[in-house]
Amino acid sequence: MPSERITISEVGARDGIQTEAAFIPTERKIELIDALTATGLKRVEAASFVHPKVVPQMSDAAEVMRGIQRRPGTRIGAFVPNSKGAEAALAAEVDDLKVGSAASEAFNELNVRMPLEKNLAVLRDIASLAKGSASRLVGVVGTAFGCPYSGPVDVERVARIVEAYSELGIELTYLADTTGMASPREIRAALEMLRPRFPAMTFGLHLHNTRGLGIANALAGLDLGVRDFESSIGGLGGCPFAPRAVGNISTEDFAHMAVQMGYSVDADIDALIACAKLAEEIVGHSISGMVMKAGKSTDLHAVPRENAAAPR
Amino acid sequence: MPSERITISEVGARDGIQTEAAFIPTERKIELIDALTATGLKRVEAASFVHPKVVPQMSDAAEVMRGIQRRPGTRIGAFVPNSKGAEAALAAEVDDLKVGSAASEAFNELNVRMPLEKNLAVLRDIASLAKGSASRLVGVVGTAFGCPYSGPVDVERVARIVEAYSELGIELTYLADTTGMASPREIRAALEMLRPRFPAMTFGLHLHNTRGLGIANALAGLDLGVRDFESSIGGLGGCPFAPRAVGNISTEDFAHMAVQMGYSVDADIDALIACAKLAEEIVGHSISGMVMKAGKSTDLHAVPRENAAAPR
Repeated sequence: MPSERITISEVGARDGIQTEAAFIPTERKIELIDALTATGLKRVEAASFVHPKVVPQMSDAAEVMRGIQRRPGTRIGAFVPNSKGAEAALAAEVDDLKVGSAASEAFNELNVRMPLEKNLAVLRDIASLAKGSASRLVGVVGTAFGCPYSGPVDVERVARIVEAYSELGIELTYLADTTGMASPREIRAALEMLRPRFPAMTFGLHLHNTRGLGIANALAGLDLGVRDFESSIGGLGGCPFAPRAVGNISTEDFAHMAVQMGYSVDADIDALIACAKLAEEIVGHSISGMVMKAGKSTDLHAVPRENAAAPR
Repeated sequence: MPSERITISEVGARDGIQTEAAFIPTERKIELIDALTATGLKRVEAASFVHPKVVPQMSDAAEVMRGIQRRPGTRIGAFVPNSKGAEAALAAEVDDLKVGSAASEAFNELNVRMPLEKNLAVLRDIASLAKGSASRLVGVVGTAFGCPYSGPVDVERVARIVEAYSELGIELTYLADTTGMASPREIRAALEMLRPRFPAMTFGLHLHNTRGLGIANALAGLDLGVRDFESSIGGLGGCPFAPRAVGNISTEDFAHMAVQMGYSVDADIDALIACAKLAEEIVGHSISGMVMKAGKSTDLHAVPRENAAAPR
């Protein structure tokens, strides 16, 4: 029986909100982040320090950082693509500077407009800037299990990025299924190849539920000992490639499963459900979380007086 | 690497449609069932021979059975709660008479208005009626992993039902997570207890995605060697206890994962996606299938000329 602790990195206020067409007012972003921090979650991503023209939704990153409550025990994270972003994030006292490269060259070229090796050089500059600060770098490998443009990804390219991250002193790397292309088979193959090769690196999973497999992929990771997961409250977010598709796995759905299986998580499920409902209210449309709609498996129903249509 | 065949029992036209408020015209039910049969699926549930007052949506069961195409190799199933239903189903030449008891006594009392042992006696009557016919009985154990009224279910009660099914000559039993209360932990515990005890019984899983864990539960079953699964095209259906919650796992989402993992299924994924779109059109509202919205993981996208907001 597992009785181990899982650490969830909540990315709803960044990766989740990023796909929202309407600008979410700064004070509402702050409200959501503060609610998430108050649940006891140990890692909460608050913003992305990118060019406001590239991601207008994140143009208030510095303001958001100034406005949020800092709770001892919760590390606030932000995505930084370059030195300029890193400087701004360091000025804002971001705890975790999230840095990323995509394993797919096609995706890299589109995402950061430079080839992998050049992008890794940019990350070295970010690491130099962060040196001596209280902040740490956390790595993300994008499209680690498949690229929407070029298809299957060679795990050797993932390994090349992890090697570069190790050289930068990064100790935690999330393998990201950016557009939900992985099945448990790819999750297992990647972990089984990478973990013996990088024994000092902690591997986490950043999963999307685009094709309904996000929680199954999380299970595959859990079974192999992964204890670090990135997810989004209420399943906030979407997929830029398919308007009706969903984005990140839902934090409370994943936590609900983990707790039912005997794992410990840092937040109470009821508190997470309340945050998911707040997130839904803030974005103003239905989001994909399921436990927020169905209730927990331990929430029982009163026996009805009249028999309804019999389910099976 | 698994290279084994999975047999999907499609229940969308029965368990899926059952929760629809509006009556689906008989000819549209027939259209959906024929489309499902044409994909090559080997088991398609077409109707429920229940009292029309209990489930008005199924009041045209006999008409549906008369109207559908029978394809060699596809077994048509129907749910039968009692002798009257069994007689009608036998007259309609249903291949698989699906019979069920709930492991939870509270659920049983509500579902069939009788205690378990009395219900098992009813199933013995059904078995007598079917004897000598070309039809076979297939067992379903409802609420095998939890009851929405009484909570956790003792696996010994599941074993009692499986024992009774064995005595009736039933060779295939689906353990049903009727309202989506299982996690992989309960799936594993039940299978590990039941399979050595009933070596002659083939165990399948009937899974619901109510709390987002349906596909993860399927993975847990697959990993333990389960090869028989019930699912609903497009994730058609809902949950009588929560208006915004979903029902059965989606056939094409599950099949898509299985194929990506190296398993074989009886139908082509594109053909299943086409059926899911037909099902959505027939019910006239959005349904929960995900691959039907996102596309297959092998469907690649053209590289855009302009860079959009960068996903991660």
